[in-house]
Amino acid sequence: MKVTMCLTSDQDFWQPSQEQVNALRSAFPDVEFHVVASPSTAPDALQDSEVYFGWRFAPAWFSHAPSLRWIASPAAGTDHLPVRRASEAGVMLTRSYGFHGRPMAEHAMGLVLGFSRGLFTSSRLQQTQLWWKDELATEFFDLAGATMAIVGCGSIGAHLARAAGAFKMNVIGVRRTPPADAQDGIRWMRTSAIRRAVADADVVVDLLPATVETIGYFGQRVFNSCKPGAIFINLGRASTVDHAALLQALTYGPLGGAALDVTTPRPLPMHDSLRLHPRVILTPKSATFSRSYMDEAIAFFADNLRRYLDGVPLHGLATPTTEGCSDA
Amino acid sequence: MKVTMCLTSDQDFWQPSQEQVNALRSAFPDVEFHVVASPSTAPDALQDSEVYFGWRFAPAWFSHAPSLRWIASPAAGTDHLPVRRASEAGVMLTRSYGFHGRPMAEHAMGLVLGFSRGLFTSSRLQQTQLWWKDELATEFFDLAGATMAIVGCGSIGAHLARAAGAFKMNVIGVRRTPPADAQDGIRWMRTSAIRRAVADADVVVDLLPATVETIGYFGQRVFNSCKPGAIFINLGRASTVDHAALLQALTYGPLGGAALDVTTPRPLPMHDSLRLHPRVILTPKSATFSRSYMDEAIAFFADNLRRYLDGVPLHGLATPTTEGCSDA
Repeated sequence: MKVTMCLTSDQDFWQPSQEQVNALRSAFPDVEFHVVASPSTAPDALQDSEVYFGWRFAPAWFSHAPSLRWIASPAAGTDHLPVRRASEAGVMLTRSYGFHGRPMAEHAMGLVLGFSRGLFTSSRLQQTQLWWKDELATEFFDLAGATMAIVGCGSIGAHLARAAGAFKMNVIGVRRTPPADAQDGIRWMRTSAIRRAVADADVVVDLLPATVETIGYFGQRVFNSCKPGAIFINLGRASTVDHAALLQALTYGPLGGAALDVTTPRPLPMHDSLRLHPRVILTPKSATFSRSYMDEAIAFFADNLRRYLDGVPLHGLATPTTEGCSDA
Repeated sequence: MKVTMCLTSDQDFWQPSQEQVNALRSAFPDVEFHVVASPSTAPDALQDSEVYFGWRFAPAWFSHAPSLRWIASPAAGTDHLPVRRASEAGVMLTRSYGFHGRPMAEHAMGLVLGFSRGLFTSSRLQQTQLWWKDELATEFFDLAGATMAIVGCGSIGAHLARAAGAFKMNVIGVRRTPPADAQDGIRWMRTSAIRRAVADADVVVDLLPATVETIGYFGQRVFNSCKPGAIFINLGRASTVDHAALLQALTYGPLGGAALDVTTPRPLPMHDSLRLHPRVILTPKSATFSRSYMDEAIAFFADNLRRYLDGVPLHGLATPTTEGCSDA
């Protein structure tokens, strides 16, 4: 049984080390792991592979992969993968989950505290103003007792909710179908009640997946329902935010600040108004940066590979109806 | 029995509201609370006061206060108060504690995450560079598994240790006399072992009080013992840090970044090298900013006032030997 792996990345923590590949080979001595260094050589390797483990899968590769039965991705989202084509071809496609929440919670809490403690304002004003205590006294807020709304609150959101809870924040979880009997201290609301949810929130975190339904979800109506001074943070997908409406809400509307880890286009042009806005922080899609990413992604894959070999249903199966789901 | 209160501040959350004063009067109907709006009128009010509750107490006021028995401060530190003079005059002096830890833990974790997630770098580079993912990929670090050394680890430090623990950081607590049988998950070390402590730490937080012993405590020897890339954060007292050694350690030595909530002079001059350094964040002594500060300071004072009236020993008594202690 042959597995083709194509996990090259610009970042070393997003590609396996030789030790990690060796460990996989030791754990599965009957499996042949073929590591390809570049996507251009993947089609050749796929000729006789049953399994593909990689960041990307080009639709054209299906015609080169007659034996393919499973595409495994180390990413949480599947909107960049050919989910429908895989389904039509009878090929399973899995995403990964359970380990993005930790770095994303660190990232989100850093952004929240950067605004709530006036740290971004400080780092800017220390260059141009002798003292800025009065500015901070006006804009800061205590996290204890403040409210965070997590929109698209699945397993990543649950992790973030725990981090927010450690600072004694109240958490509103917003999702299409709230859990039936949650014992997690989260106040659950339906996506249909989004405007009531954001009206109560000092911080709104967007973790929505990219689907047809979520395009421009955060638009003028939702932003105008936000609490005065609220901070908006998008760690989900760029397509879920109407950038023009966001700029409007920052300049003339209720928003006190915004942080975007994802934008369209990526990167934003140098003179984009959001990039230049003094209350907007951009991060370069770094919310999932973690030095242990590949350890965890390989552990997830190895567990699924064991299930595959044992004929047990795989974790993280994506279907055209879950397409774009960036969270569990 | 008369209490003179002088709690005026530039910040509204550091001075009592009329409601808060009324609540004190209701709780102590037999006590006369005399609120003075300006320190210049304090000496007059002190003529027949047994108790003074205020931010400052000028040594010259002792001669105007023949009945004074207790000076209560809402601040954590006492290095700005005449501790020795009070002791000589037979006047008790108390500091406040137990409620600075929460905002200071928020502030410290915001600074730590601002560095660890590359947020300060992002906010700077978004203005000048199209993309900076590779820069962040080099400098970021995971909090989970990283180590924080808290130097001067008392009750404020214990609060910070819990916040760091929520992110699965390891915590080293450094103090003159570590607790005998701590069950707090903190690895305790003595101040005398500071160089071993900082050698293991990704983040070093200075919470030392200002005493004769701590002047310039963080100097060349300690900074040169730090782990490469370590972040240094001072939320304690400016006098504990040798600024020239800090700049040296940032520019030529091991430090990856620094955040200073306190400096000498305050504010730093516009062209001070630390102010202009790209890896230094200054905050304007805002670590204890909290909208609930006065609620908590008054609750602490009211508890102590009850003890005073009942003849029970007060909490937070400062003596010349504890002078400058900024933490419990």
